[in-house]
Amino acid sequence: MPDRPLILVVNDDGITAPGIVALAEAAMEFGEVVVVAPDSPQSGMGHAVTIGNILRMEAVNFPVAGVVAHSTTGTPVDCVKLAIHRILHRKPDLVLSGINHGSNSSINVIYSGTMSAAVEGAVEGIPSVGFSLLDHAKTADFSAAQQAVKRIVPQVLEHGLPNGTCLNVNVPKLPWSEIQGIKVCRQSAGYWEEAFEERQTPGGATYYWMSGKFTNPDHGEDTDEWALEHGYISVVPTHFDLTAHHAIARLNQWEWA
Amino acid sequence: MPDRPLILVVNDDGITAPGIVALAEAAMEFGEVVVVAPDSPQSGMGHAVTIGNILRMEAVNFPVAGVVAHSTTGTPVDCVKLAIHRILHRKPDLVLSGINHGSNSSINVIYSGTMSAAVEGAVEGIPSVGFSLLDHAKTADFSAAQQAVKRIVPQVLEHGLPNGTCLNVNVPKLPWSEIQGIKVCRQSAGYWEEAFEERQTPGGATYYWMSGKFTNPDHGEDTDEWALEHGYISVVPTHFDLTAHHAIARLNQWEWA
Repeated sequence: MPDRPLILVVNDDGITAPGIVALAEAAMEFGEVVVVAPDSPQSGMGHAVTIGNILRMEAVNFPVAGVVAHSTTGTPVDCVKLAIHRILHRKPDLVLSGINHGSNSSINVIYSGTMSAAVEGAVEGIPSVGFSLLDHAKTADFSAAQQAVKRIVPQVLEHGLPNGTCLNVNVPKLPWSEIQGIKVCRQSAGYWEEAFEERQTPGGATYYWMSGKFTNPDHGEDTDEWALEHGYISVVPTHFDLTAHHAIARLNQWEWA
Repeated sequence: MPDRPLILVVNDDGITAPGIVALAEAAMEFGEVVVVAPDSPQSGMGHAVTIGNILRMEAVNFPVAGVVAHSTTGTPVDCVKLAIHRILHRKPDLVLSGINHGSNSSINVIYSGTMSAAVEGAVEGIPSVGFSLLDHAKTADFSAAQQAVKRIVPQVLEHGLPNGTCLNVNVPKLPWSEIQGIKVCRQSAGYWEEAFEERQTPGGATYYWMSGKFTNPDHGEDTDEWALEHGYISVVPTHFDLTAHHAIARLNQWEWA
C-alpha cells in the first residue's frame, strides 16, 4: 500500500504512556504509523527545544502491531524535528500528538508539550492535530478519545488545514454514548491561580511545590471550556503567529521618537 | 519613594548573563527593581513550567546597586510565578525580560524562554516586555538595547498595554547612532531549517547535535525581520490567544457528525 499516508505520532507523557498507545491504535486505520516520543514524561514542557545539549534516540518495541517506534531523550518538539530529519527522512503527511492525559484547553495550550508538538508540525507545514482527554489517570478510558480520532483524522486528511494552523482537540471524560458532538471553538480566556507549598528537606533546606487552581472568567458559549462542560469535544484551530494584530494600530499612536 | 513602580526583571540566559545586568541597570531609572532569574542558562525553554519536580530559590548578590536578586532552579516562566507568589507577594507593576543574547524575532518567539516569561506576565495581567539583542556574544554591547529600554519602558508605564498583550522588542546589532528608529510590526513568517549532526561517543554510541538555518520567505515590510534588516528596533505586540480565528468559519464547513 504505497499510497497510505505516513502518520507521525508523538506525545509529551512519554513513549510508555497509555495515551500514545491508544492514539497509535486509532491512527493505524488511516495510514502507516511511526511513533517518536520522549523516553520520559515531559508534561508542561511547552515549546522547549534542546539547545546546547546532545540528543539520543533508539528504536524500541511498541505494543501495537505494525508500528515502528523510537524513543528520544528530547522534548516533544525535538521529537517532531528528529522524526522528520533523522527517522522518516521526509515530512510525514500528518502529525498526531497525544492522547494527552489531562486537558489542554484554554491557557493550557501554551504550557503543553502535546500541543507544542502539534504546533511544531504546523511550523513544518504538516497538517497536525493534538488530542487530549480530560482524565489524568493512568487507567483512563481512552475509547471515546479514540472515536474522536477516528472522526477527525479523515476530515483532516480530506480537507487539509489552513496554512500554519493545527487543531487542539479536547475530549470530555465521558463514555462515547454521552458525548454531545464536536464543536469548533476559540480558546477560552482562563488561567491558573498558582500556589507554592513550602517544605523543608531532611537537611533543613527550603523547597517548593507548585500547584494551582484553574479559573475561567470567560463565559462565552463559543469557547473550548463551554463545549467541554456541556459534553462536547472541543476543536480549536491553533496557530503560531502570536502577533496581537488588533493592538498594532493602538501602539502606533504612541510617541516612539 | 513609596510610589515608584515595582519592576520584576527576569531572563532565560541565567542570572549571571550580562544581558540581565544591562536590563536591571536601565530599569533602575523607572522604579524599584527585583531580579528573579534561573540559576543556569534556559535558552529554548519556551513556555516550560516545572510540574512534578521541586523548585528551589535563594537570595544572591547582583552587580547593580539597589537591586534585590534571587536565583531559582526553575524555568523563566517558573521565575515569574515564584516572584509573584513567593518573593514579591504581590503582582509587580511591570515585568521586563532579557536582555536576551540573540534574536527573538519571527518564529523564535515560540521557542524563547525570554518571551515566554513576558507572555506569562501578560497571562498574569501585568504589562510585560521582552527585550532581545541580535548578538549572541557574551561580550555583546548592550548600550543601544539599554537605550531601547529607556525609550519603551516609560511609554508602557504611561499607556499600559492592551489586555493579554505583551511586547516583543528586538534590537539590531548596531550602535545607537545608527539605529533608524522604533517600528511596530507583526511577527514574520520565518522558520528554521534544522539539521542534526550525527556523532559517536568514545564508547561508540550515536548522538545528535541540532543545528539550523533561519529562513524567511516573508518579505512583508510590516514584519519584524524587515525592520531589523533595515536598522530599526522591532516591537511586536504578542498575545497568548493561539486561536486561529480566521480558520473557524472554514472548519465549521466540515462534516463533523
